[in-house]
Amino acid sequence: MKQGLEGVVATSTRLSHVDGNAGKLTLAGYAVEDLAPHASFEEVAYLFLHGRLPNPSQCTEFTEDLARRRGLPRAAMTVLEEAATAGAPPIDALQMAAPLLGLGRVEDSREEAITAIACFPTIVGAYWRIRNGEAPVPVRSDLGHAAYYLHQLSGAEPPAERSRALETYLNTVCDHGLNASTFAARVIVSTRSDIFSAITGAVGALKGPLHGGAPGPALAMVFEIAAPERAETIIRAKLDRGERLMGFGHRIYRVRDPRADVLAQAAERFYSCGGDRPLYELARIAESTALRLLRERKPDRRLDTNVEFYTALLLHGLGLPPELFTATFAVGRVLGWAAHCLEQLHEGKLIRPQSQYIGPVGLIYDRSTVRVGQQM
Amino acid sequence: MKQGLEGVVATSTRLSHVDGNAGKLTLAGYAVEDLAPHASFEEVAYLFLHGRLPNPSQCTEFTEDLARRRGLPRAAMTVLEEAATAGAPPIDALQMAAPLLGLGRVEDSREEAITAIACFPTIVGAYWRIRNGEAPVPVRSDLGHAAYYLHQLSGAEPPAERSRALETYLNTVCDHGLNASTFAARVIVSTRSDIFSAITGAVGALKGPLHGGAPGPALAMVFEIAAPERAETIIRAKLDRGERLMGFGHRIYRVRDPRADVLAQAAERFYSCGGDRPLYELARIAESTALRLLRERKPDRRLDTNVEFYTALLLHGLGLPPELFTATFAVGRVLGWAAHCLEQLHEGKLIRPQSQYIGPVGLIYDRSTVRVGQQM
Repeated sequence: MKQGLEGVVATSTRLSHVDGNAGKLTLAGYAVEDLAPHASFEEVAYLFLHGRLPNPSQCTEFTEDLARRRGLPRAAMTVLEEAATAGAPPIDALQMAAPLLGLGRVEDSREEAITAIACFPTIVGAYWRIRNGEAPVPVRSDLGHAAYYLHQLSGAEPPAERSRALETYLNTVCDHGLNASTFAARVIVSTRSDIFSAITGAVGALKGPLHGGAPGPALAMVFEIAAPERAETIIRAKLDRGERLMGFGHRIYRVRDPRADVLAQAAERFYSCGGDRPLYELARIAESTALRLLRERKPDRRLDTNVEFYTALLLHGLGLPPELFTATFAVGRVLGWAAHCLEQLHEGKLIRPQSQYIGPVGLIYDRSTVRVGQQM
Repeated sequence: MKQGLEGVVATSTRLSHVDGNAGKLTLAGYAVEDLAPHASFEEVAYLFLHGRLPNPSQCTEFTEDLARRRGLPRAAMTVLEEAATAGAPPIDALQMAAPLLGLGRVEDSREEAITAIACFPTIVGAYWRIRNGEAPVPVRSDLGHAAYYLHQLSGAEPPAERSRALETYLNTVCDHGLNASTFAARVIVSTRSDIFSAITGAVGALKGPLHGGAPGPALAMVFEIAAPERAETIIRAKLDRGERLMGFGHRIYRVRDPRADVLAQAAERFYSCGGDRPLYELARIAESTALRLLRERKPDRRLDTNVEFYTALLLHGLGLPPELFTATFAVGRVLGWAAHCLEQLHEGKLIRPQSQYIGPVGLIYDRSTVRVGQQM
């Protein structure tokens, strides 16, 4: 038995390749550091859904198609209002709205995939406004995907450097091999279920704290440090208490996570022309101090800054509060989920492993206690 | 690579054991034919959640606990109304309501499991009434689980033999090894996500036509035959046209599915004291004719009546239309999903297999087309 299916190859894919030893991430043929900072999200989405980058007219057509699908069914809005009343986290609201995306539409799986990708920014943006007592802003079809998400959240058209920073983030996290949520999506759709069902399941998997990828407390340490001269004392005290430093190390990468580089550069670029520059500099000091102290304590173990650290820094710079981090991750990752579903539908078969029974056998039900047709 | 993870053991379990060669199904130590027709659903649920049958006082306490949790959050009712407006199938309504079950409750995983099991009959029953233009009936806590489901559907207290027939069905299908929906639930909860997320994903997997277990068209042939003397002609014509006879054969069982026996006996018992007796006898004639003709054509292949055939017959006798069959299957199977989730949470680790990358590498993004900070 393979506990957790570790090391078992469950499927082939043309979508992404994680080489943890070399620190390389390939996205449909392109190195993440080559593609993510430069391509538009729409180009990457087309690449994932069609297996190649679009030419200019294909890109225009796809961009318009994506933009046309942004509106939510009325039922989804109703659910978001109910979720807001209950104070649900944005990722829960996403999970509640996702299965409603098919209501009133009849689409093939490719159309469902595009609809899901198109609607995720609307769901999160509308929900965030409702939860904060504001009315959702009308759907716009004249903004690129990343700009549209920021507009749905804030109601304002974002400056270009903000959209670009978010776009780089969405591209960077759009897929990452067969992580648990992507695998959940493939298992669900392997029964020939629909894309919305699979994506709803994937959101459910993403909610779990063992999933990773969604940055929670990575910035909390930076806020706690508050001033550069306190960095060493505070980090040393954490290590003395045996606390794990959030934002460092990754389950798969033995060397630096290539996504961390992409996001570090995006953060550097973004904070150079705006944002909370003192916080950025404090974060860099916290990072270098943490790495130095970690190496001092565990010289034989390589612990690098991971993608969560720079995600938190970048999203904070864009004005997103930590409560939105996981849902924003999903706005990017839904592309990978959708593309994996299409790949599974086209090439895969039912995913149904075995279990090994380790319980008792041959027990006999005592019929003297039988109460046929009982009512309480 | 193991396509579809066929033959790979992904987990151990104490919940059920499917021996396809011997035609045996063990439910937490008990043979399905010993347990399902005699135990109450509450006893089986306790067995699955606690690993042993309850003593009388435990049974009373558990039964009351289950009955207390039947009410839905208001948001779930709202979603059901929206789903009905859109004419969604009951299984879709179940998928939309399931992620809302946690709204306004703070529960540990065991409580979530019991809540999910308790609420499934309410969701399906309420939805069915709303879709048919009737008001949902108030939640009752003084009925056993199976009787409660029938009451939620019809608004009337069912006679004892009806409740017992449904109870036998729910017990029979409550778990079946690591099928695709159960595996999906375990993958999702393996990230330490919540039970409602896992169960929502499982419903999504169950929706797929490759899942099996939920009887769709098995009775259609019986209705088509309409009179005993037409059985042979109609079935022969189907086989001549190369049509697959629905209701015969199973992916795993090489001999007769033991669940088919349990449900055949439950049907015989039920139809002996009520129901549409002529239809029942017609179905038995259709069955024996189909088996005879299948053996005539494929003497070397063993094709038995499967669980879908008797499920359809039994549920039809209980007055359930085929549109409710899959959702009713889920009312039973949610017990297995919930119990597998608890087992996974207690004993399992993150389920994260590998993928093999077969796409291109080393492609270079053409930056001459880069439009930094573009807006459409």
